[in-house]
Amino acid sequence: MSQIHPIINPIDLNFLLYDWLQLETLTERPRFNEHSREVFDAVLEMALSIATDKFATHAAKLDQNEPHFDGERVHIIPVVKAALDAFSEAGFISASFSEAHGGMGLPYTISQAAMAMFSSASTATAAYPLLTAGAAHLLEAYGTDAQKERYMLPMLEGRFFGTMCLSEPQAGSALSGIRTTAYPQEDGSYRLVGDKMWISGAEHDMSETIVHLVLARLPDAPKGTRGISLFIVPKHTLDEDGAPGDRNDVAISGLNHKMGYRGTVNTVLHFGSNGGARGEIVGQPNRGLEYMFHMMNEARIGVGLGAAMLGYAGYLYSRDYARERRQGKLPWKRDGEPVAIIEHPDIRRMLLTQKVFAEGALALCLYCAYLVDDMASTDDPQQKAELDLILQLLTPIAKSWPAEFCLEANKQAIQVLGGYGYSTEYPVERYYRDNRLNPIHEGTHGIQALDLLGRKVRIQDGAALRLLAGRIQDAITACAEVPELAELVEGMQAALTRASETTLALLGAGMKGDVPRYLANASVYLDMMGHTVVGWMWLEQANVALHTGAEEGEGGLTGPRQGGLHPLDQ
Amino acid sequence: MSQIHPIINPIDLNFLLYDWLQLETLTERPRFNEHSREVFDAVLEMALSIATDKFATHAAKLDQNEPHFDGERVHIIPVVKAALDAFSEAGFISASFSEAHGGMGLPYTISQAAMAMFSSASTATAAYPLLTAGAAHLLEAYGTDAQKERYMLPMLEGRFFGTMCLSEPQAGSALSGIRTTAYPQEDGSYRLVGDKMWISGAEHDMSETIVHLVLARLPDAPKGTRGISLFIVPKHTLDEDGAPGDRNDVAISGLNHKMGYRGTVNTVLHFGSNGGARGEIVGQPNRGLEYMFHMMNEARIGVGLGAAMLGYAGYLYSRDYARERRQGKLPWKRDGEPVAIIEHPDIRRMLLTQKVFAEGALALCLYCAYLVDDMASTDDPQQKAELDLILQLLTPIAKSWPAEFCLEANKQAIQVLGGYGYSTEYPVERYYRDNRLNPIHEGTHGIQALDLLGRKVRIQDGAALRLLAGRIQDAITACAEVPELAELVEGMQAALTRASETTLALLGAGMKGDVPRYLANASVYLDMMGHTVVGWMWLEQANVALHTGAEEGEGGLTGPRQGGLHPLDQ
Repeated sequence: MSQIHPIINPIDLNFLLYDWLQLETLTERPRFNEHSREVFDAVLEMALSIATDKFATHAAKLDQNEPHFDGERVHIIPVVKAALDAFSEAGFISASFSEAHGGMGLPYTISQAAMAMFSSASTATAAYPLLTAGAAHLLEAYGTDAQKERYMLPMLEGRFFGTMCLSEPQAGSALSGIRTTAYPQEDGSYRLVGDKMWISGAEHDMSETIVHLVLARLPDAPKGTRGISLFIVPKHTLDEDGAPGDRNDVAISGLNHKMGYRGTVNTVLHFGSNGGARGEIVGQPNRGLEYMFHMMNEARIGVGLGAAMLGYAGYLYSRDYARERRQGKLPWKRDGEPVAIIEHPDIRRMLLTQKVFAEGALALCLYCAYLVDDMASTDDPQQKAELDLILQLLTPIAKSWPAEFCLEANKQAIQVLGGYGYSTEYPVERYYRDNRLNPIHEGTHGIQALDLLGRKVRIQDGAALRLLAGRIQDAITACAEVPELAELVEGMQAALTRASETTLALLGAGMKGDVPRYLANASVYLDMMGHTVVGWMWLEQANVALHTGAEEGEGGLTGPRQGGLHPLDQ
Repeated sequence: MSQIHPIINPIDLNFLLYDWLQLETLTERPRFNEHSREVFDAVLEMALSIATDKFATHAAKLDQNEPHFDGERVHIIPVVKAALDAFSEAGFISASFSEAHGGMGLPYTISQAAMAMFSSASTATAAYPLLTAGAAHLLEAYGTDAQKERYMLPMLEGRFFGTMCLSEPQAGSALSGIRTTAYPQEDGSYRLVGDKMWISGAEHDMSETIVHLVLARLPDAPKGTRGISLFIVPKHTLDEDGAPGDRNDVAISGLNHKMGYRGTVNTVLHFGSNGGARGEIVGQPNRGLEYMFHMMNEARIGVGLGAAMLGYAGYLYSRDYARERRQGKLPWKRDGEPVAIIEHPDIRRMLLTQKVFAEGALALCLYCAYLVDDMASTDDPQQKAELDLILQLLTPIAKSWPAEFCLEANKQAIQVLGGYGYSTEYPVERYYRDNRLNPIHEGTHGIQALDLLGRKVRIQDGAALRLLAGRIQDAITACAEVPELAELVEGMQAALTRASETTLALLGAGMKGDVPRYLANASVYLDMMGHTVVGWMWLEQANVALHTGAEEGEGGLTGPRQGGLHPLDQ
């Protein structure tokens, strides 16, 4: 066994995309009708190829050779830039952007499926384009034409990278407390002064420059979150042709050292040590948080997907290890030779637990991506509004459930390998260290839980939750007559009832004034809702699998699906 | 906040030892009647002092400066030897050994309580004396007088350290597959040839020599576990006076690099690269595994205690952090200033979860230690036999439940600190990495679960389980009339019923031949039994706390207990 690992199970991915989500139907809509299944498959094959050859090959080395700062420059092992160049050249940063912007105009679902492979191969490396694509999306939505030309297009080409600068040393989860200030200049630009904390991708030489998107206050801004504006602050000032020139007044004094995600540079960024960092405002003053949430919602699903893929990578690695490693005998075959440990019931339990969490989390994140595509390609405004509500409700779950439970999956992957799993010679301990970040960044588990229970569940008097419950109930109804699914249907109905009753009980406690009890249950509530949602998706998939059969599902990446096998043998 | 952390809550420790376990009553028995509460307190105060001043001060540095092997010698930062010298000089290796062997003859419970502090302060450092004391205990039980003189006594003085050599690269959990062979020599000694894997403390210069206790086969031994013998193989051969001389034929080729526990040297030991490592047999041929289990049972409770204390250290650190860090407002006090985050309900939930796991795990391990003392000091053979059964049943739980759930506690400690918790500047990520070993070594979680469900539960047709259930039922009955405990009593009774029913259901499945189902549930069963046992201990403690009151419990380490406070404020 080596540090290089299988990245994804293509049978599973094809099943999710084509059998379950029916992604090909998107190509019948005007938005995507220049595409076809063949195009999607070609994109995914290229992603798998680059992820395997360029990303997975350096992940362990990058973890063991953390970026370092020599006082002037940050040094990152050169294979990382080579991998990211291959990524950009193949068009993956701009994959889901419109052709007008040099993108491929692909469904977001396909670009996310591609991103899943890169995250599985080297999550620390994938963070750089993930942030860059998010920043570019934000400018696509809210930037001026000039800003798109000068900042967004070079990001889509991979020439500039992006960051998002929200937290400050004294204000992590509570953004209302940020203090960084943007002073207006006579020429319409701004000078920024302040410190930003936990900035991923803050400093490196892998791109021509770095475009920082920075939340800051105008000097006369209202207090709290209503006084936050958004600014573009490039690492270098750009000349009239958009070429990076002198260093802007943005500096670091060192790097944060972390348990995992060690390949992703992270540090405090100091703005304005020498009079103020030059920046320009995005959109209107005091609406910065609203714009940033555009990026954050995308980033949140991206975090969930990254967490899912760490869980997935650990599942595949430990499953393959368990097939090879021979140790112990089966108690019901005392006289035999040592067996492959995958035959031991406790090992099977740990592998199936990982499979349920990792494949379930991937399904959840792809479902959310599909909602984006469905929304973008439907003509029906009512349908669009409903899809938006469901996506809003699912976003905190898609961020947090994979982070929580695929971390648990990684714990089990280590356990399957035993002492070897704890050793740095094998990749599973790295997945576990990397994945421990995911419940923290882009809004902690607790923040997502408050977003779900305190905000999303209550939108339009519960409209989003009713729509979601309707979809779950539809699935239950569709499966109710399938004999093989009777036990699952019964369990799912009970889970849906419990979710509804729990929601009412907690909202009731909150309304009666027992706010601490209401809030103390928010995280547990999010976990329960995640189980319910993922259970629903598994039920749908079980139904699809029963009706698709072994012969029908031909997969672009691998040829025919293998039917009739035990889940661990696929 | 710094890397140095509070090691234990002395109020809690005193409560467990004196109010709950009534440890002072031991001093009324002949075995311990030379001791007193004052002696116990003095020992614990000295342990706290050395742990705080010598261990906690180097734990982060040791983690960041992993031992390294230069091809000839292993280098460990010198403060570790200084700390271990202070530990030995104060008599902690031999604390629970008899005065005849230069020990203090203290109750095992007191020596474990002292060990708890060292594990909390630097678990990687504490591993060296933990292994040494275990090896010495084994020789005390099974060694010849000469072996005690030559090997055990120098270990108790801290001059020699010990290791236990069980696993081999091809045989981890399945010891029946070990291949290391001991060839008898004409002079009655043995020459050992083979490789041992995952050997902690295998090589270093911190002691005059290292005494390896090695499982190996005689050339004509029966197959499987019935053909395993135990040998003493010192790193250096000893001269007639017992002074270490030339290097024995025992070598390493490098060190294992691990996610955590980085300060504890761990590697493959090669025996016999040059003709065979000189060794001597312990006890009778082919009974090595039986002897080793003597050591392993002690080591297993030691692992549980170490896991508990990592959870405990994380709890205390994150609680103190949460008291200092101010961020966010309380929704029911919208106009206020940012509050200490300990006031947020979700933070309180995470702190209380840690408290329940960590303090519960400590109680469980101290209870097991108390059973050892109770057994050693009772005159009643029937009582002794019953205590032994209960201890046998609880040992896999005491090893595994703390490992599993205090790892979960450490996960929450990181979460309380957010991004800071993920940074290596703070100790909580180290606790989490360290604790991840505990479900693996000294018998994995799965191995402990098989021991519990496949062996311990079935001893004497369920006698151990009946005794345990009797103790739990006694506690429920004793609390049944206490109005404040009504809810707890009800929950505990339900838990006991569920545990009994689950045991019967699983044993029934096994007897009906559905062995895979029986075994696949073993780990989950162990978790459930752990919850049940710890719940029972919490119930007893609640009852004691109600009846002890605030004024009465005067603690040796800190003065009076503080009553009437919220659990998080103690």
